[in-house]
Amino acid sequence: MTVNRQWIYARKPNGQIGAGNFDLKEAAVPKAAEGEVVVRSTMLQFDAASRAWMQGQTYRSQLNPGDVMAGRGIGEVIESKADGFAAGDMVMSDIGWQTHAALPARQVQKLDKSVAPELHLSVYGITGLTAYFGLLDVGRPRPGETVLVSAAAGAVGVLVGQIAKLMGCRAVGTASDDAKCKWLVDDVGFDAAVNYRQGNLNANLKAACPRGVDVYFDNTGGDVLGAALSRMNMWGRVACCGAVANYDTATPSPGPAGVPGFLVTKRIRMEGFVVMDFFNRQREALLQIKSWVDDGKLKPVVDIVEGFEKMPETLVGMFAGKNRGKLLVRV
Amino acid sequence: MTVNRQWIYARKPNGQIGAGNFDLKEAAVPKAAEGEVVVRSTMLQFDAASRAWMQGQTYRSQLNPGDVMAGRGIGEVIESKADGFAAGDMVMSDIGWQTHAALPARQVQKLDKSVAPELHLSVYGITGLTAYFGLLDVGRPRPGETVLVSAAAGAVGVLVGQIAKLMGCRAVGTASDDAKCKWLVDDVGFDAAVNYRQGNLNANLKAACPRGVDVYFDNTGGDVLGAALSRMNMWGRVACCGAVANYDTATPSPGPAGVPGFLVTKRIRMEGFVVMDFFNRQREALLQIKSWVDDGKLKPVVDIVEGFEKMPETLVGMFAGKNRGKLLVRV
Repeated sequence: MTVNRQWIYARKPNGQIGAGNFDLKEAAVPKAAEGEVVVRSTMLQFDAASRAWMQGQTYRSQLNPGDVMAGRGIGEVIESKADGFAAGDMVMSDIGWQTHAALPARQVQKLDKSVAPELHLSVYGITGLTAYFGLLDVGRPRPGETVLVSAAAGAVGVLVGQIAKLMGCRAVGTASDDAKCKWLVDDVGFDAAVNYRQGNLNANLKAACPRGVDVYFDNTGGDVLGAALSRMNMWGRVACCGAVANYDTATPSPGPAGVPGFLVTKRIRMEGFVVMDFFNRQREALLQIKSWVDDGKLKPVVDIVEGFEKMPETLVGMFAGKNRGKLLVRV
Repeated sequence: MTVNRQWIYARKPNGQIGAGNFDLKEAAVPKAAEGEVVVRSTMLQFDAASRAWMQGQTYRSQLNPGDVMAGRGIGEVIESKADGFAAGDMVMSDIGWQTHAALPARQVQKLDKSVAPELHLSVYGITGLTAYFGLLDVGRPRPGETVLVSAAAGAVGVLVGQIAKLMGCRAVGTASDDAKCKWLVDDVGFDAAVNYRQGNLNANLKAACPRGVDVYFDNTGGDVLGAALSRMNMWGRVACCGAVANYDTATPSPGPAGVPGFLVTKRIRMEGFVVMDFFNRQREALLQIKSWVDDGKLKPVVDIVEGFEKMPETLVGMFAGKNRGKLLVRV
C-alpha cells in the first residue's frame, strides 16, 4: 500500500541548520475533496529563503515545528475533483516536502508536458523570473555597465550573469570557492568571478570590476554587500533579492557600514523586491526567456539530487554552497 | 587697517569635534584678479556635512589641516573685476570661514536684497531645496501617508515636516530632547515627535506612527534608521539625505541590521541624493516654496548666533543638538 512520506520541520535551528531539524514521517495518502486535486510529487525544489521561513515571518507566514516542511515542486495528478485537471496532468504547486498532497485547484498550475520538469522549476519558474525582473526592472543595467551578482553559482545568480551579458554588460560574480569561480568564467560565460572567502575581498573586487560596479544584484547581504557598496559607481543600483548570509543563523550580523553614507555620496538606489509583485508581467518575461533558451543564449543550470530521503541533507548542502544552479530533488 | 580674519581647520578631529580643531588667523584682505569679486562676509552658515568634509572625501573634496574651513555664506561685494557685479551687491558663495574672500564670478550668485540673508541661507537656499526635492522627488509621499524625519528640529528636518503636512501626510519627527519635541508639535506643527535618546525607541516610534511609516527622510543614519526600517510599511521609501550620526566620529558604527532583510520583505526603496543633482529644477522649487512662505504655510526657522569669533563653538553646539532650524552666524 502506498503511503505519503513527509519531512516534518521538527525542531527550530539554533544557529546553522542541520539534517536533525527534520523528521521523516509516514501518513495516509490524502483523498481529494471537492475542488481539489491529489498530486504525487516527482521533483521538489530548494530555496535559500526556506531557511528564513523557519526563522520568522517573511513574505510568507512563518513555519512552525510540526509542520510539513514547505517548498514548491512538480507532481503528477493522481486524482482530480476539480474542473480542468485530470489524472496524468503535470502540475506545479507549493506541494511541501512530501510525496503526496491534496491541493485546492486554485493553488495548482498546469504545466506543458513537453518541457522538462527541471526547466519548469528553474529557468521558466520563480528562479528565472526573479533573475529577469530583479536585474532588468530593479537593477536597470545599460550596455557597457558592470553588473555584479553575489551567490553567482546559485540558481538565480547563474541566470543574472548570463542576462547581464545579453544586455551588453560586464558580468562579475562572487562565489564561495575557486572551482565555482573557474566554472562561472569558463563554462557559464561570466567575465570574472571572485572567491569572497579568499584573500582581500575589496582588492579582488576592484581587480574584477576595474570600472566599478553599476548594478549589484544582492542575493546575500553581509560582507559582499558591504564591499559592493564601496566599489559602486555614482548612480549605482542595488537590487536586493535576498540575504542568504543572514538566513542560516539565529544571530544576523549588522548591516554594512556604508549604509547610509555611501548611498548619499554616490546617490545609490537600493531597492528590495519580491518576484510575486511582477507576476502580472510573467508572460512577457517567459516569452523573452524562452527565446533566449531556444537560441542557446541562456543556459539553464540545474543540479538534481536523486531521492526524497535526501531532502534535509541537500538543503544543508545548499547553505554550505555545494550546488551549482537550481538545486532539485527527484522524488 | 582692515584684515581678513580666518578660521583655519588646523587639526583633524580624533573622535568628536571640538573648538580646538580650529585656529583663528589674520591675513591681508585679498584684491580682485580679473574676473573676480572680493566679498566681505555678513552671514555664514553651518552644515552637518562639514564634519564629513573633515573626515574624508564626500561629494566635495576633502578638507586638509591648514585650509580655511569651508562653508557657504552671504556677503557684500566690496570690489569687482567681473562683469555683472558691483560694489554693494549682496551675493552668496562658498566663502569659507573668513571675513573676506576673493572669488571667481562664476562661483558667486547675486541675491535679491529685498529678502533677508537668513532666508536666502535657509528656506530659499540649499536647506529648502534639500527638503523639497528629497521629500517630494525621492520620498514621494502621498496624501494620508506617514512621513517620519530624523533630526526634525534641524535645518532641513523642520522644513520636511512642514512640507509633509502640506502634502496631506502625518508628520512625525525625531529629536534629541523633550523640549525640542514639544516645540516641534506645539510650534512647528508636527503631529508627533519622539525623543530618540529616551526610553524604548521602537515602542515610542510605534506609538507616534500607529499606521507605520511610509516615507522616512533620513538625516542621521544610525539607530533611528534601524528603528524606522522596522516600522516601515510595505513599499516604503527612505530618502537618504545624510548620516549625521556617523559624521562626528572617527569610528562610524555598522549599518542597520535590517539592511538588506527588511528591504526585501517589505520592498523598500532606499535612495541617496545630493541636492546639487536637482539644481536644474531650482526655479520650480523656489516658486513653490516662496508661495508657501508668502501664504504663511511654511515657516522659515533660523537660529542666528552673533559674532564671527563664535564659529567653532557654534559648530560644536550643532553636533550637540543645540540649534533649532538653520544655524547661522552673523559676522
